[in-house]
Amino acid sequence: MVEIRKPIPVAEAVAQVIGHVQRLGTESISLEQSMGRILAEPIVARHNVPPFDRSPYDGFAIRAIDSKGASGDNRVPFKVIGEIGAGYVGGLPVGPHEAYRIMTGAQIPESADAVVMFEQTVETEEGFTIRKPFETGDNISYAGEDASKGEMLIPSGTLIHAGTIALLATFGYADAVVYRQPVVGVLSTGTELLDVSDDLVPGKIRNSNGPMVKAQLKRLGVPYKSYGTSSDDLDACTEVIERALQETDALITTGGVSVGDFDHLPAIYERLGAKVLFNKVAMRPGSVTTVAVLGDKFLFGLSGNPSACFTGFELFARPALLSLMGCTAPYLPYLKAKLAEDFTKPNPFTRFIRAVWQMTGNGVTAAPAGFNKSNAVSSIARGNCLIVLPSGTRGYSTGDEVDLLLIGAEQGAEDWVL
Amino acid sequence: MVEIRKPIPVAEAVAQVIGHVQRLGTESISLEQSMGRILAEPIVARHNVPPFDRSPYDGFAIRAIDSKGASGDNRVPFKVIGEIGAGYVGGLPVGPHEAYRIMTGAQIPESADAVVMFEQTVETEEGFTIRKPFETGDNISYAGEDASKGEMLIPSGTLIHAGTIALLATFGYADAVVYRQPVVGVLSTGTELLDVSDDLVPGKIRNSNGPMVKAQLKRLGVPYKSYGTSSDDLDACTEVIERALQETDALITTGGVSVGDFDHLPAIYERLGAKVLFNKVAMRPGSVTTVAVLGDKFLFGLSGNPSACFTGFELFARPALLSLMGCTAPYLPYLKAKLAEDFTKPNPFTRFIRAVWQMTGNGVTAAPAGFNKSNAVSSIARGNCLIVLPSGTRGYSTGDEVDLLLIGAEQGAEDWVL
Repeated sequence: MVEIRKPIPVAEAVAQVIGHVQRLGTESISLEQSMGRILAEPIVARHNVPPFDRSPYDGFAIRAIDSKGASGDNRVPFKVIGEIGAGYVGGLPVGPHEAYRIMTGAQIPESADAVVMFEQTVETEEGFTIRKPFETGDNISYAGEDASKGEMLIPSGTLIHAGTIALLATFGYADAVVYRQPVVGVLSTGTELLDVSDDLVPGKIRNSNGPMVKAQLKRLGVPYKSYGTSSDDLDACTEVIERALQETDALITTGGVSVGDFDHLPAIYERLGAKVLFNKVAMRPGSVTTVAVLGDKFLFGLSGNPSACFTGFELFARPALLSLMGCTAPYLPYLKAKLAEDFTKPNPFTRFIRAVWQMTGNGVTAAPAGFNKSNAVSSIARGNCLIVLPSGTRGYSTGDEVDLLLIGAEQGAEDWVL
Repeated sequence: MVEIRKPIPVAEAVAQVIGHVQRLGTESISLEQSMGRILAEPIVARHNVPPFDRSPYDGFAIRAIDSKGASGDNRVPFKVIGEIGAGYVGGLPVGPHEAYRIMTGAQIPESADAVVMFEQTVETEEGFTIRKPFETGDNISYAGEDASKGEMLIPSGTLIHAGTIALLATFGYADAVVYRQPVVGVLSTGTELLDVSDDLVPGKIRNSNGPMVKAQLKRLGVPYKSYGTSSDDLDACTEVIERALQETDALITTGGVSVGDFDHLPAIYERLGAKVLFNKVAMRPGSVTTVAVLGDKFLFGLSGNPSACFTGFELFARPALLSLMGCTAPYLPYLKAKLAEDFTKPNPFTRFIRAVWQMTGNGVTAAPAGFNKSNAVSSIARGNCLIVLPSGTRGYSTGDEVDLLLIGAEQGAEDWVL
């Protein structure tokens, strides 16, 4: 008889997975290699930004007091005593009715307390005149205006992206302390699987899940170790998985998790003594998605159907791996949209549909990316989101509001909201 | 006197840049290396998917005709003549009242034309009985159902992401024909610039734009060559840029594009004989952003202010580089949102504000990511979008609808909509 499995809701499955995350340790890496990693220490302002009072414009640094009473009828003259380019410092204090010609980004010279922009001056032989008074602080970017020394700017657990790298560089973080990355094993199971370079033979198909999962890992910046394909042979498959678990921090398998005669993953989890967190999720595609843990290692048993495999990775493996790396925003970003097409199939389980979202004159819309059976491989290469249709409904019509999870976004969300 | 430049609208600047793109050639690379590259040939179904009639479930393959008249009172018996796991083929044609036990993904055996799911059967000594009739095609995934041989599935010019890789693998594309990537030079100019590992000294700051731009290129998967920093010396800087142009396909410089006494980029463009497309854009920050072309090479002269530099890259360099690589969706994705905070500054120019968007109970909202002067470096490390406020307005209030451009999305937009 066929084993009867009890499906659990998607949100519960996600919570189960996240609940078993044991954060990896930390390491120090060079700034140049830190893109896409997760900060294991907050970024703290090691000094003021700007580090000194600075001119935000090209102009002249003066003492504001000297500009008192200036008007169109009473132009006040200044004598230019030198020039300060960015990166230089003025050698002399500014005296009464003296000025430094100063460039954007340059340090305000001693005794000066305002900057007059070029456009506000008329040149004279000795310098320039102005027609309005200035106040102390006019056109000065003060030290510490953008960040004060000691201020916590970005918390630990944040993804390092291009802007983060700018901030780290500003404060002289030549190395960044980040969480260690897991090495993830990838194994595709199924006697039907050919390699990508093999010719088709009757009854067989090429392994597309393996290359896809590796690409999904690459997108997360997670290193992987490929274990190729394994036929549906219990002993051989067990052996590969045992070896993979010794060599990696987590293992993703595709296929073999259903209840067919050659679906050996359930038996392998039992042999290994792994704790199965769930083996049935109330979702389509991918209801057979299984996640198990053995010690501190995850075993993600994704479905052999490409769409289900993709979705299972994004829903479970992705947030788990990001959380292992200390990321505090491990979930796919969430958006609501109007359905751009009818979707009349009933949903006994929560349904995830590969789709294209876009902003239109009618708000955000989302259209299924084509044929979306769990084994349809053509839609998988389209779409920038998953439409999420809750279970227990009798179909949706164009214009209905639906939930979306965005695929391929650099920054994730802190909460699972569905 | 200060040179007066005529600002052009952002949309016009973008169009100018894109209008000068000369697409690079193509190359063939291995599937495993193709993530993030742009298809230079469409993906065509090289065979049907499924390649053969296939069982979508675990069950029994029968001849539908034999199930005629089955009911609760008249259970029809079948004899099991063998088992077909995925990857195998049945050796015998199915005869009257015969069946193969068949697993998900396995090829339908000769003469069978329907699949009965396990749950729909009652076991007998010889096989099983059923209580309802089946039609030809029931529970069969027909060859070509997901894709027919010769069908164009994904057009040239599309980004290769994880789903695309699945599709390429399915059809045996062990190599993918993609557009060549440009090698981009990165040079930070400014006498004030220290290296990230240097201690601060009076008047100087560390170079944050160089590391940031390199990270922005890395995010696009574009290889770069770093030319470090150059002081504001006309001859030395010209020499580095001439060398960089010989060694790269495009050059990004930061700083030196304003009208200050040490802003040498305008003079260098003139020396090189480069055609300046624009040197003033009606935007804040980054109004001095300059783009020039020399032959088929772009020179992106980004502002030295980190926020302006970041924005200039995303608005101009990003779509240009993606277009060079043949990408047909090179623009940042676009979304509308409600402003989550007042923004009362007037906008003589279009203003780009680093911000955080999120879906809330009140729709999509966007909040500025903090202090947003063009030289504020702390906000640059926050936010997942840019709020775009059109020029000519007198400030915005909480709840006003504003345009967003999303940062860090894997897939771009085909059109510039602002």
